[in-house]
Amino acid sequence: MQILLTLSYDGTDYAGWQRQNNAIAVQQKLEEALSALLDQPIVTRAASRTDAGVHALGQRASFYADVNIPLEKLPQVINGYLPRDIAVTATEAVPDDFNPRFDAKFKTYSYKIHSTPNPLVNRYSAYVPRPLNIDAMKSAAKDLVGYHDFAAFMATGGSAKTTTREIYDCTVTDDITITITGNGFLYNMVRIIAGTLMYVGLGKLPTNAISGIIQSRDRTQAGKTMPPEGLTLMEVGYTTYRQIQ
Amino acid sequence: MQILLTLSYDGTDYAGWQRQNNAIAVQQKLEEALSALLDQPIVTRAASRTDAGVHALGQRASFYADVNIPLEKLPQVINGYLPRDIAVTATEAVPDDFNPRFDAKFKTYSYKIHSTPNPLVNRYSAYVPRPLNIDAMKSAAKDLVGYHDFAAFMATGGSAKTTTREIYDCTVTDDITITITGNGFLYNMVRIIAGTLMYVGLGKLPTNAISGIIQSRDRTQAGKTMPPEGLTLMEVGYTTYRQIQ
Repeated sequence: MQILLTLSYDGTDYAGWQRQNNAIAVQQKLEEALSALLDQPIVTRAASRTDAGVHALGQRASFYADVNIPLEKLPQVINGYLPRDIAVTATEAVPDDFNPRFDAKFKTYSYKIHSTPNPLVNRYSAYVPRPLNIDAMKSAAKDLVGYHDFAAFMATGGSAKTTTREIYDCTVTDDITITITGNGFLYNMVRIIAGTLMYVGLGKLPTNAISGIIQSRDRTQAGKTMPPEGLTLMEVGYTTYRQIQ
Repeated sequence: MQILLTLSYDGTDYAGWQRQNNAIAVQQKLEEALSALLDQPIVTRAASRTDAGVHALGQRASFYADVNIPLEKLPQVINGYLPRDIAVTATEAVPDDFNPRFDAKFKTYSYKIHSTPNPLVNRYSAYVPRPLNIDAMKSAAKDLVGYHDFAAFMATGGSAKTTTREIYDCTVTDDITITITGNGFLYNMVRIIAGTLMYVGLGKLPTNAISGIIQSRDRTQAGKTMPPEGLTLMEVGYTTYRQIQ
């Protein structure tokens, strides 16, 4: 049977999701835990290959195995084998032909920024030591919604076949949490969007700059790539996204 | 002149506020930063000697020095000398006879608990892997308010002259943040109160147990001492506490 896990992790001390030769990845820790628990070599596939230092509250990963433990008990049992900074929060059985990456209909990420020093949020939020115009950021965020060519918001090194993606929703809260949902994201796209919205907040870019940047398809027109610590994969959805607002 | 700082820290990697011979304390890091910045030996006094692993968002500490830097610029300048897990957020000049500890009129602490695994809050919240009856905890918290002998809620090792304290307010939110304000707290008092409210949440103690525990003056009647990571010093007040509710 194929089992789909929902998992959370603090990415600070990991080289990202994907197994590496010279660094510890979340995938390695999860596979070691599952292999030890089930006494057989386990390989996992994730919905999103999060980068080094990026966090997750709703990552999904699946594996094939016959498991005798009741599925509702499985998270607690697996967590006994995992380090404290990785936790499985839910499990479900899925059909054998289910693919956690390619069957995803949407993903939601959050990017957090704080502009007054606060050591208690540093691990999960990027520090920008200047005041930000949050209303301008809220307005600019709306212009990202829609079916667009996001080539201007892609770092080099991506392997995407096309640079067109649909953004279903993008909001900014008063405590500067950018939440963005789309059918998929290009390499570093959320961190570049966060950097572009930050530039709007700083007044380095006008509030109405987004449409022109999208049309330019030019990476140098967008803002900087924000650091990984502010980024959290919040949800991977396998049904059609419906905006609840 | 005497300068009063407001400071925040992530206590995870520190042996508490107070200088130690064999471990790194927040006081040492702050005094090293101030001494380097002002080019003279600086000694600080804090409002609260927080324990190892305890956090702060509103600690206060003062020192005597003649400072040429404008006070409103001082936080940013000091933060350049501090590690990332300690930050000064405000400064003000106070009279020479001001004492940050003995002049405090109230202190507010928060204690956070989470009962579903979440690696992104582990550093700042205690994990209790069982469901809690939050309504029972809310009700029990009210019985702590008032002028009481809190001997049952004091760990051995405290140096207090009396065990009587006044609690002005104690609330529990739906996300299990206990917030408590009082004119002072005995050694480990907030962590024992959190453990006692947790026992109420688990059903190990009845909802109406608090008054009897206070009357007993017996430490063994109260709940366990909760771990330090859930505790944060939120505010030290130098004017009379007024409950805003």
